[in-house]
Amino acid sequence: MRQIPAIETQELAGAGHGGNLSAARRAFPLAPEPWLDLSTGVSPYAYPLADLSAEAWTRLPDPSALCALESAAALAYRAPEGAAIVAAPGTQSIIGWLPHLVPARRVGILGFTYSEHSRVWRASGAEVAIVEDLAELADKDVAIVVNPNNPDGRLVAAQDLRALAADLGKHGGLLIVDEAFMDFLSPGASIVPDMPPAGVVALRSFGKAYGLPGLRLGFAIAPDPLAAKLRAALGCWPVSGAAIAIGSTALSDLTWLAATGKQLAIDVGALDETLVAAGFNVLGGGPLFRLTGHVDVSGWFETLAKAGILVRRFDARPSWLRFGIPGREADLSRLRGVFGLD
Amino acid sequence: MRQIPAIETQELAGAGHGGNLSAARRAFPLAPEPWLDLSTGVSPYAYPLADLSAEAWTRLPDPSALCALESAAALAYRAPEGAAIVAAPGTQSIIGWLPHLVPARRVGILGFTYSEHSRVWRASGAEVAIVEDLAELADKDVAIVVNPNNPDGRLVAAQDLRALAADLGKHGGLLIVDEAFMDFLSPGASIVPDMPPAGVVALRSFGKAYGLPGLRLGFAIAPDPLAAKLRAALGCWPVSGAAIAIGSTALSDLTWLAATGKQLAIDVGALDETLVAAGFNVLGGGPLFRLTGHVDVSGWFETLAKAGILVRRFDARPSWLRFGIPGREADLSRLRGVFGLD
Repeated sequence: MRQIPAIETQELAGAGHGGNLSAARRAFPLAPEPWLDLSTGVSPYAYPLADLSAEAWTRLPDPSALCALESAAALAYRAPEGAAIVAAPGTQSIIGWLPHLVPARRVGILGFTYSEHSRVWRASGAEVAIVEDLAELADKDVAIVVNPNNPDGRLVAAQDLRALAADLGKHGGLLIVDEAFMDFLSPGASIVPDMPPAGVVALRSFGKAYGLPGLRLGFAIAPDPLAAKLRAALGCWPVSGAAIAIGSTALSDLTWLAATGKQLAIDVGALDETLVAAGFNVLGGGPLFRLTGHVDVSGWFETLAKAGILVRRFDARPSWLRFGIPGREADLSRLRGVFGLD
Repeated sequence: MRQIPAIETQELAGAGHGGNLSAARRAFPLAPEPWLDLSTGVSPYAYPLADLSAEAWTRLPDPSALCALESAAALAYRAPEGAAIVAAPGTQSIIGWLPHLVPARRVGILGFTYSEHSRVWRASGAEVAIVEDLAELADKDVAIVVNPNNPDGRLVAAQDLRALAADLGKHGGLLIVDEAFMDFLSPGASIVPDMPPAGVVALRSFGKAYGLPGLRLGFAIAPDPLAAKLRAALGCWPVSGAAIAIGSTALSDLTWLAATGKQLAIDVGALDETLVAAGFNVLGGGPLFRLTGHVDVSGWFETLAKAGILVRRFDARPSWLRFGIPGREADLSRLRGVFGLD
């Protein structure tokens, strides 16, 4: 009864990413539609889409409009004056470029974390160490910290990251801070506002906080000459006309961001209550996902999937299960129903 | 009276790309709105946009949907069975990646052509020769042919390209064929249908033929392991949900493509007639742009710009002026009006 075809299981868990509903549908063809996807850290609240002008599609994105988008992002992320900010079609594309732009032999990543960083640096030939302690990163050529961390929400204080950057700077090392899930935290949590003038790159994702990951938009805040190299690598017209239009509007809308953050805090409280009532330990997380522990993760993963609810498990952490935030009352009720709570 | 601020002139011509209306507006602030942009090779006929599902924006692009897009592209471009096709956010992003994925010391480019190829290979440290004869490419590590060529429309026969690929193959060289403007030519003009199983990469642009360059979508048809390397470099979710949805539909619509091609052929005839009547020599081009020669390019560029019509000139070819295709009767009339023809 608990048997899932091996290849489908691999597809669901092996690639290390959530959101693959097609694979879920193939693995659980009898699950009720529509699926409720709680397997990602994407906000359930999409920034409201206005009609796009035809020109967003029919013209090559205008360099001035791209510039305005980057300025809006710089303001939203409180980038210090003089910091360069570079738009890209998703932070994933920046993550992919960095090993080609930064020479590094020894790379350290604060683990357990998002798998793409280690994948790209290993592919570049670097020796990658996944470490558990920030101090172990100080002697690397490149140190990578996902902050707050995915999937456990661990937050490293900005001042500790600045101290690490200073240590790295002594031998010309670079600190990469992936702030993909930073948006709803307090501004002091981000390294961007007090970013050192050199030796640190911060990555920001647009799609997760604004609920629009299909748009493909992310940013690097980086010192020159690295920012210039990244810009040249991404080439002219790095992001779509839609990403420029929607991103510029959304990033300037601080009222929406604050209201959404408040709603998410309420949702997280309700979700945690549900998870605890269902016998899960809430191990961590943030406003966009909750990490839990349970003795029977496989059983619950399958029970939920058969009920059309996809959550995220981790091959390397078999007792962990990550839940995205149900944004509608009906979605939370559906989850509670599977848990036998209502 | 013919004075244009130097920095604006540079911005308009120096970067080597058309479509920069912001710069045109700054350089010619008194020009009537709206501008008519004939500075690119983008079709004036945009593929009709249907409403996108909310999921195109609110979900991470589904791997199966990306796969279906690539299959539609393979069919549209008549890729042979077994050829790998990789979607990217614009062929520009593929052009940017190739020097990082293909080791090459000596690169040859059939010139005069699109400037980005030489830019990215030079930036990678390769020695780049711009040659005038196909035979001069045979001993390179990487040979690049834009076919049909931009801006003059020169077309190299597919069989000659296959012969060149065979020569290159003798020493492990790679042929890159940039077919950005191939869509409306006869199928036999493309190297894709009879692509050798190794040693050739073809690039196809979606936005130009389908009039949707703001979407950012392009493809590489490449042998493995290069295709696999490119896919890994671009990472998960390389293109937007909108690009997947619109691209899949448009690439499957051969009726629209054929009808648009016929209309463009009529438009090209009318434009050529106009240009010749105005004293320009039509030197070449294709269904999406016409290259002309004139003794007073600067004068005409400025006269047209002051009338709100942006065309494309080339620093390195001061007697050339390239015109995009006016797609509406009113736009052609506006051009004829500036020429004093109506």
